[in-house]
Amino acid sequence: MEIYFDNAATTRIDAEVEKKIEEINRLVYANPSAMHRLGYFAEEQVKKSSETIANILHCDSSEIIWTSGGSESNNMAIRGYTSLYKKSGNKIVTTKMEHASVYKVFESLKEDGFEVIYIDVDSEGHINIDELKQIVDSNTILVSIMYVNNEIGSVQKIEEIGKLIKENNMNCAFHVDFVQGFAKYRINVKKSCIDFLSISSHKFNGPKGVGILYKNKDVRVKPLILGGSQQNDLRAGTLNVPGIVGTATAAKIAYEIIDEEYNKLKNLKEYLIDKLEQLNDIYGIISINSKKDESFAPHIVSVTFKNIRAEVMLHALEDKGVYVSAGSACSSHQKKLSRTLTSIGLKSELVESTIRISFGKYNKKEEIDNFIEILNELIPKLNIRK
Amino acid sequence: MEIYFDNAATTRIDAEVEKKIEEINRLVYANPSAMHRLGYFAEEQVKKSSETIANILHCDSSEIIWTSGGSESNNMAIRGYTSLYKKSGNKIVTTKMEHASVYKVFESLKEDGFEVIYIDVDSEGHINIDELKQIVDSNTILVSIMYVNNEIGSVQKIEEIGKLIKENNMNCAFHVDFVQGFAKYRINVKKSCIDFLSISSHKFNGPKGVGILYKNKDVRVKPLILGGSQQNDLRAGTLNVPGIVGTATAAKIAYEIIDEEYNKLKNLKEYLIDKLEQLNDIYGIISINSKKDESFAPHIVSVTFKNIRAEVMLHALEDKGVYVSAGSACSSHQKKLSRTLTSIGLKSELVESTIRISFGKYNKKEEIDNFIEILNELIPKLNIRK
Repeated sequence: MEIYFDNAATTRIDAEVEKKIEEINRLVYANPSAMHRLGYFAEEQVKKSSETIANILHCDSSEIIWTSGGSESNNMAIRGYTSLYKKSGNKIVTTKMEHASVYKVFESLKEDGFEVIYIDVDSEGHINIDELKQIVDSNTILVSIMYVNNEIGSVQKIEEIGKLIKENNMNCAFHVDFVQGFAKYRINVKKSCIDFLSISSHKFNGPKGVGILYKNKDVRVKPLILGGSQQNDLRAGTLNVPGIVGTATAAKIAYEIIDEEYNKLKNLKEYLIDKLEQLNDIYGIISINSKKDESFAPHIVSVTFKNIRAEVMLHALEDKGVYVSAGSACSSHQKKLSRTLTSIGLKSELVESTIRISFGKYNKKEEIDNFIEILNELIPKLNIRK
Repeated sequence: MEIYFDNAATTRIDAEVEKKIEEINRLVYANPSAMHRLGYFAEEQVKKSSETIANILHCDSSEIIWTSGGSESNNMAIRGYTSLYKKSGNKIVTTKMEHASVYKVFESLKEDGFEVIYIDVDSEGHINIDELKQIVDSNTILVSIMYVNNEIGSVQKIEEIGKLIKENNMNCAFHVDFVQGFAKYRINVKKSCIDFLSISSHKFNGPKGVGILYKNKDVRVKPLILGGSQQNDLRAGTLNVPGIVGTATAAKIAYEIIDEEYNKLKNLKEYLIDKLEQLNDIYGIISINSKKDESFAPHIVSVTFKNIRAEVMLHALEDKGVYVSAGSACSSHQKKLSRTLTSIGLKSELVESTIRISFGKYNKKEEIDNFIEILNELIPKLNIRK
């Protein structure tokens, strides 16, 4: 038996997406920059893929930049924008619980003379919008806020935030890390006043190594990778046509079934939380850092097992064929405490006893039943203070 | 009939490589940063792939950095090195015929106060080693020279150059763009005193969207993409495991048959050049910018058809099912004259009449016969000054 509950780390590629990639590899293998017909066919595939994404985001296909992943998209937006708009102001704002590929760029921008402000989040991982309102001023050039937190699943009110930012300062750019939100939420980047939006293909059953950066055509960005004139000189490098088409295919599939999928995942989440609460009635050491309601994403459940270190639980679970995460996969090899979990006020002892369960489209309710049974067996053995 | 003579732009993925990628997609889909067994399996695949590449380059597997392609590798090496070693000197050196992803980074470094020196090449596209000897001094921190030129195929004496650089200045780093050289030439990065080496997977029948940067462990580099602690904090982003394994598979296949392949390609090149010379005896408008000897790569032939614009020839050929390139694919959408062709002294009129034929492992001698027949038919029609 194998239960894969680590879909926020990465997902298995969809069979239909893989088939499409094989087809492109076979039929459209030329370089889209080539002037001949085969190159043109490849370019057309990229254009169509950009249109698919643009339709989902409600933007123009010229505003889609293909990258190598969510991290590159985050780096490109934040570094590329701030380096061009330095003269307009030196304040940049983000939250205390962003992904490392946002946080570390902000940290590095301190060296470039930027004043970096990290907004607090409450105990549920939602930012204080009033605080943001007070902070964004005429000197603020960029705000970066993630849509769905990758460790606990808290969802920010992005449209409200976007409008607020622009009310305070029309020229302040708004970047949204949408990596855990894409394929889960409908979005209209224009309505939400978003200037940059980052997406990662492998989080929604697309291929690994492909990302997207939406860039509002009214703002400029300095390229991270210089070279050939691909993508309007914004991102050099031979376009990964099979990966791009695969990503568009995965996106299309995901948004065709987004409502059913959302409901299915939300039901799984509610079912798991109910079962974990019942388990807690027995053991009294379980606390859940995610909520059943709509202010949390449908696919992420963060759970603390007091007295049981996350690694111990993780390895005990994998011995039973259940795969979960300790914190987020991206930082699991680091020995630092999760910024997300500490920012919601968890004490270090509890942070170190927290695991993340994340669902994907191949998960089933029965897997949760199995998982709960396994926990019921493991907790008494692992709880060091019975 | 379809004759694909644009392999320097990109190659078709090898069926065996594709099969391997499918297998990894199916069996090893987890995030290599995950702490559980599935993550470990994925990480093992990456390690094995790094070892495969390290064996080919004669370096340690810890010196292999996986990137999204040759352009990223070039950008990362040049920008990432110079930004850390600025204090050691402000002179950086390259040639007049580098790929755009090297050239444009050098150009951008002028803004950062670097003195950029572009070394001349002779009429065959080989640099003057004596000139280089005079230029590299104690103030020079980086030299970047491509192994095989992507437009005409000229090969530089990299080992001799590497030793010369280090003789002049032990602390000057040496970057080699090996994108067109990998899978064609054996290399020993240590013997050649190379500190950075860029490789692109899709140029040798590997997947698109994957590149490699070899980095000598004795030099440091500033990451281009910050975030998760992947790859020793040097390149953030979820590792593209299927792409990485696919690249290692393609590399392994290529180096197993490197001698036969080299000879096969060289025979194709010699045969084509002979046939073109015979054709020139009839029409008198053909000049060949590549040579049959070992100072040119086996897979690239640059040909000028005086009086026939490259685009005209290219489109006439594609109507017959033959796909070639005008200049390099990467810059084909630009209206600027090829830097490579002007640097070897071609007049602009001839530059604009030059096409590139590039072979790959699926090409056959009969295709050259067909191509020559087609040329024999086209030239009288297209030659505007008969």
